[in-house]
Amino acid sequence: MPAAATPLRFSRLLMTGAAGGLGRELRGRLKAYCDTLRLSDITDLGTAAAGEELRPARLEDREAMLALLEGVDAVVHLGGVSTEQPFDLILQANIVGTYNLYEAARKQGVKRIVFASSNHVTGFYRQDEVIDANAPLRPDGHYGISKAYGENLSRYYWDRFGIETVCLRIGSSFPEPKDRRMLATWMSYDDLERLVMASLTAPVVGHSIVYGMSDNATSWWDNTLARHIGYRPQDSSDTFRAAVEARHPTLDPSDPAVIYQGGAFTRTGPFE
Amino acid sequence: MPAAATPLRFSRLLMTGAAGGLGRELRGRLKAYCDTLRLSDITDLGTAAAGEELRPARLEDREAMLALLEGVDAVVHLGGVSTEQPFDLILQANIVGTYNLYEAARKQGVKRIVFASSNHVTGFYRQDEVIDANAPLRPDGHYGISKAYGENLSRYYWDRFGIETVCLRIGSSFPEPKDRRMLATWMSYDDLERLVMASLTAPVVGHSIVYGMSDNATSWWDNTLARHIGYRPQDSSDTFRAAVEARHPTLDPSDPAVIYQGGAFTRTGPFE
Amino acid sequence: MPAAATPLRFSRLLMTGAAGGLGRELRGRLKAYCDTLRLSDITDLGTAAAGEELRPARLEDREAMLALLEGVDAVVHLGGVSTEQPFDLILQANIVGTYNLYEAARKQGVKRIVFASSNHVTGFYRQDEVIDANAPLRPDGHYGISKAYGENLSRYYWDRFGIETVCLRIGSSFPEPKDRRMLATWMSYDDLERLVMASLTAPVVGHSIVYGMSDNATSWWDNTLARHIGYRPQDSSDTFRAAVEARHPTLDPSDPAVIYQGGAFTRTGPFE
Amino acid sequence: MPAAATPLRFSRLLMTGAAGGLGRELRGRLKAYCDTLRLSDITDLGTAAAGEELRPARLEDREAMLALLEGVDAVVHLGGVSTEQPFDLILQANIVGTYNLYEAARKQGVKRIVFASSNHVTGFYRQDEVIDANAPLRPDGHYGISKAYGENLSRYYWDRFGIETVCLRIGSSFPEPKDRRMLATWMSYDDLERLVMASLTAPVVGHSIVYGMSDNATSWWDNTLARHIGYRPQDSSDTFRAAVEARHPTLDPSDPAVIYQGGAFTRTGPFE
Amino acid sequence: MPAAATPLRFSRLLMTGAAGGLGRELRGRLKAYCDTLRLSDITDLGTAAAGEELRPARLEDREAMLALLEGVDAVVHLGGVSTEQPFDLILQANIVGTYNLYEAARKQGVKRIVFASSNHVTGFYRQDEVIDANAPLRPDGHYGISKAYGENLSRYYWDRFGIETVCLRIGSSFPEPKDRRMLATWMSYDDLERLVMASLTAPVVGHSIVYGMSDNATSWWDNTLARHIGYRPQDSSDTFRAAVEARHPTLDPSDPAVIYQGGAFTRTGPFE
Amino acid sequence: MPAAATPLRFSRLLMTGAAGGLGRELRGRLKAYCDTLRLSDITDLGTAAAGEELRPARLEDREAMLALLEGVDAVVHLGGVSTEQPFDLILQANIVGTYNLYEAARKQGVKRIVFASSNHVTGFYRQDEVIDANAPLRPDGHYGISKAYGENLSRYYWDRFGIETVCLRIGSSFPEPKDRRMLATWMSYDDLERLVMASLTAPVVGHSIVYGMSDNATSWWDNTLARHIGYRPQDSSDTFRAAVEARHPTLDPSDPAVIYQGGAFTRTGPFE
Repeated sequence: MPAAATPLRFSRLLMTGAAGGLGRELRGRLKAYCDTLRLSDITDLGTAAAGEELRPARLEDREAMLALLEGVDAVVHLGGVSTEQPFDLILQANIVGTYNLYEAARKQGVKRIVFASSNHVTGFYRQDEVIDANAPLRPDGHYGISKAYGENLSRYYWDRFGIETVCLRIGSSFPEPKDRRMLATWMSYDDLERLVMASLTAPVVGHSIVYGMSDNATSWWDNTLARHIGYRPQDSSDTFRAAVEARHPTLDPSDPAVIYQGGAFTRTGPFE
Repeated sequence: MPAAATPLRFSRLLMTGAAGGLGRELRGRLKAYCDTLRLSDITDLGTAAAGEELRPARLEDREAMLALLEGVDAVVHLGGVSTEQPFDLILQANIVGTYNLYEAARKQGVKRIVFASSNHVTGFYRQDEVIDANAPLRPDGHYGISKAYGENLSRYYWDRFGIETVCLRIGSSFPEPKDRRMLATWMSYDDLERLVMASLTAPVVGHSIVYGMSDNATSWWDNTLARHIGYRPQDSSDTFRAAVEARHPTLDPSDPAVIYQGGAFTRTGPFE
Repeated sequence: MPAAATPLRFSRLLMTGAAGGLGRELRGRLKAYCDTLRLSDITDLGTAAAGEELRPARLEDREAMLALLEGVDAVVHLGGVSTEQPFDLILQANIVGTYNLYEAARKQGVKRIVFASSNHVTGFYRQDEVIDANAPLRPDGHYGISKAYGENLSRYYWDRFGIETVCLRIGSSFPEPKDRRMLATWMSYDDLERLVMASLTAPVVGHSIVYGMSDNATSWWDNTLARHIGYRPQDSSDTFRAAVEARHPTLDPSDPAVIYQGGAFTRTGPFE
Repeated sequence: MPAAATPLRFSRLLMTGAAGGLGRELRGRLKAYCDTLRLSDITDLGTAAAGEELRPARLEDREAMLALLEGVDAVVHLGGVSTEQPFDLILQANIVGTYNLYEAARKQGVKRIVFASSNHVTGFYRQDEVIDANAPLRPDGHYGISKAYGENLSRYYWDRFGIETVCLRIGSSFPEPKDRRMLATWMSYDDLERLVMASLTAPVVGHSIVYGMSDNATSWWDNTLARHIGYRPQDSSDTFRAAVEARHPTLDPSDPAVIYQGGAFTRTGPFE
Repeated sequence: MPAAATPLRFSRLLMTGAAGGLGRELRGRLKAYCDTLRLSDITDLGTAAAGEELRPARLEDREAMLALLEGVDAVVHLGGVSTEQPFDLILQANIVGTYNLYEAARKQGVKRIVFASSNHVTGFYRQDEVIDANAPLRPDGHYGISKAYGENLSRYYWDRFGIETVCLRIGSSFPEPKDRRMLATWMSYDDLERLVMASLTAPVVGHSIVYGMSDNATSWWDNTLARHIGYRPQDSSDTFRAAVEARHPTLDPSDPAVIYQGGAFTRTGPFE
Repeated sequence: MPAAATPLRFSRLLMTGAAGGLGRELRGRLKAYCDTLRLSDITDLGTAAAGEELRPARLEDREAMLALLEGVDAVVHLGGVSTEQPFDLILQANIVGTYNLYEAARKQGVKRIVFASSNHVTGFYRQDEVIDANAPLRPDGHYGISKAYGENLSRYYWDRFGIETVCLRIGSSFPEPKDRRMLATWMSYDDLERLVMASLTAPVVGHSIVYGMSDNATSWWDNTLARHIGYRPQDSSDTFRAAVEARHPTLDPSDPAVIYQGGAFTRTGPFE
């Protein structure tokens, strides 16, 4: 059971992967909800703005991670490999790294983590299937398998140690949807912020799983089971539909990237 | 099978518990849908307005209840104890009283009842679970158990005698949400009126169960199974979210009132 | 697996039943999405507008159907009997006719069909039940059984031959809802167009089933399983609710047309 | 609702398809449960034994069917095409014929029918899936589609006219299992008799669906939903397993007959 | 959470309803599992055998019940009304009485109760339906409603106070099945003993529900959810089937006692 | 899709973990089903018997694994850490090792693997819950998480590369059940052999999950979904029940090892 209160405003919030695509976008936004925003990544984080702490660290460095989590109220864990890559890269960043993060949270008494999982944990469902968070996993590559590892790991840290996690199975968070698949998977940055903050501040989350998407007409994912999070998307890929369809008027129906929810991930690799 | 037609406008509508919080609110509203509004309670009902009939009665008085139901088209049953109280009070008002009401309905030929059940029939589900009307009951006290009794009783009067009931598992109907929990459970008075009237006038309801809540972003209850009622909430606790959160910026995660859907009911009593 | 690309704009689109109620309504609308709109029916189709091809044909005429499907990108199959009728009529138009259509599609290499099924495949569910596309069928007459035949047939052509179908379980598509039942079942013509076009252009549909209804407050059908189609209704029977209810203030609760989702179909026939 | 009592011993029982494989086997067995066993087929039925009535009739002959059902307590309907055949054969025997049978039952007041459906209504499920009677249908050919037609038709005759049916989704009823697939699908003749008699004599069946199989270790079908029938198989394909496996030590895993539950039916046809 | 160990052999076991049909049968059997068997009823309990304590008490007498539970390891609660009776009798014995029992257990620190619920909590399901413990309740009378009350009450005492209960939805426990319905519902006395002892001694039961029946071929209830109890019936109504069927060769299919699982209970009463 | 036939008798079968508890037991048994039994472990394998090939190899040695899988028809993968251990041990043997095994299978064209998963992937379900293979995972430690990794990995190799896997969620395979928990989880060695051989020889398995247990009266796991495997246990913990219970007459109900399915694993570690 959790022993520390979850506040609406945090004293110190940690975001990993702060130099990545989503991290750069959230960096300016999350500052509004905390006194100190601690930022970590393995690449350059630039200059600290007011209220920011820059803490470069490798996820696979256990001691560095232990130090990183010290004095932190909650974590937004975006760090790690975010595409299909050779196994050894994923192993270190996403498996060893996520283990290190949760062990550090346990030792430092951090009680809530928002974990950037991925829709690729269920990427081998077809695009004409609609699933929810209870559907058995069907990862579409070693990246998806590593995110499934993180979901299972965080479930354990909840059942055993009372550390709460919201797993965000993020679809495609970009300025706008780039292709026909993203008409289903797209999440605007504003909706991403809404989802992260709802996950950080909902009174009780235990171990929850929510798909990260905007209010798109086309969807493969049913978030009914996560209504307790209070996430209500305000944007929609529908705004961009006509333009996207005009750029991609036809699709190859024999292409796994068209058939499966995971898109091109389902035909990436193997690398050796 | 029901043998009497359900009209859109009622000749005589009975509302019990008319002097209670919800009763006082609905009193002025329901008059618009009927020629005569019969009102009953054990406490003072004030003066009868045009088209009102005031009929004080104790729910546990079988004869009084039989008389109360005479000549009535339909019933909105709000009467009884509405919080966790010592068993004997609940026994008389909510168990004996509800039995008396349904027996009177059977004898007087009343064919539809809107029964104010409560979310406390499932109050021991966690606040990070989302359930629907088919979830096994987990009442959070003797009050919730008595409402479960009423749900089962009314199911029997439908299966055996063709008396239709809509069970409203009301969340928290107040002028505005008072605390963080009510961001999930709140139902505005306007939405309450919408829900009661939809329940009274839907062509066929058999034995239906619907959670009574507004269109809140945070929710623990899925009303998909009750779409045939035609209830579409127009209000939302989201309007009040910022103010409520400002007043209650932190919560104690070890408090059952924070963990379970039933809130403080889950730690009220026992009284001896 | 499908072998031909599904475009957003079609070279030649075939619509059967083009002289029927929905056909006449869609005729002008579908032209915008294709170079050539081929129209077929057994009754008079009037004069061909620019870009139209008129091809009268009987569904039960196997050779005529084979010719009809030649050179077609996709089919909107509205043809056949659309109400409860004597068995022999339904047999020829809806069973033999649908078989002929799918055989022709197989031989001509047509890869996607939008099939006008009907809510009458589940018409013997009660009006106080909410179902989805996985609910076992309960047809309400020989018409409903013939539509169930078409759904099963099209499932086979997908599993065996890779021909995709979206089965539209159309509720009541009329200019406006005519009675209390249609407050649940109504679909505006604009929403019908949206649904047909979403079904024709969704990247992958395999064999999908979707109920055809507008965004009505009262509903018996849950389209969650079909969100991948991307159909988002814009209209609602709620606009007409007050007028409809005023015209039909009471209903006979012992009438099967009031009790069951299929309405009056559930008490039509038998014809001998 | 049914209006005639279902006895344990019948005055007159009708079995169609009496000259087919299962019919010949059941002919001698069913006589023990009735005073008169009426037998029908389109091919030679031989000489009538004591208590037998021979009534050759074509299923597609409506008048003949009406006469055939006269004075009958219950029907075991085995007649019709029982393998994948050209559509027109299946249409007449299995679609028109089954319609004729149920119409005759309605007119003659027959209240219970045991309908020989087939596992081929779900033949396109994979052999590594376990399904029950609520799984959406996936027929593996026009034969399977025609049996699905019969299941839907009989559901209607129950919902509308109170005629009860047990649909037997028969696997493979032969003296012994012939191949690896039949280790899952086999039903002994003794078990077939048990299943038919349980279906005829269970007090209430409404519209029930049960898979016809012996107590085989390997199985794809879960009959939990049909336990009210009281069918308890006594035989098992396991007795024959070693011999069958010895004769078929390897299988081609790319063969649809190995992959899908329908076996070779899934690759039979099309015939033109 | 429970705080007292559940032993395999009890120091003192309490059985209420000890003078009733099942109580008399279990009296001799339960003695083998405890040092002292405390027996209670409102009617004469005869003479105490070695190791027996006789404690007449009325269930509705709160003080008597408190005394009755003192020093007890576990309870087998068979007491109360066991057939459909006028409401006031059921109210006192089954509602007030069960409340008194659980309050006494709470105050006396008793941690496990085996509660004789009844199949009549789901008696309005049809005899051609198979249900499990998660099916929504459909009681068939005030008796069934009172047992549903006990199930909900005991769920609360588990969720709130950590008192474990196994609810036994007993079918028909008699020396042998008396009629066709009991071919489905029968439980031998030996199986009753097995079920009670498994419920008393299973390491962890929380709040469990199990249908009480022997290994009958015909069944309406699926106990899969209760396999953790370890109840394995050894008897079967099948032994008596031929004799029972011979005595009752026909049934009236319009009789609710034939249609519904609750049998004659579904048409007993109302008493005024 | 698999491209190689699965035989009943193998030319060369590989068993990893051959020096472990289950490996030593299966070594003598599997030889009967193959011409050559290749055995691997990191500890001493003794002397090769006729038809045996001894191939010591470390699972984390990618090249060694590639060589190990050469010329193999199928694999029984028992290797790796089989209890809760420090993370780094589990990481190498169970995560890197299982990855290496599947990559080697892919490169060497091996088409079926029997993977020794564990009940500890769902060890945080309570002992009064009954689950099946579709229940969301709740691992009880890093060992369980690593087995969940293997299940997800093997799902991917099926979806992407057509390599079939049966995941055996083995309970407790020992000569006899040692404690009360094992009355539910025990699997005899004979049943283990039956399960492994059924998994190796079933015609089609795709990606299947089956709990490994004997026919125990007490059970927490429902294998209905895996009936296609054809595993029918012949032994039961019931034989040992009296002796086990006599040795462990009481249990501490506050011990996680008593409450949760994972037993003592749920309170092992953390190791730092």
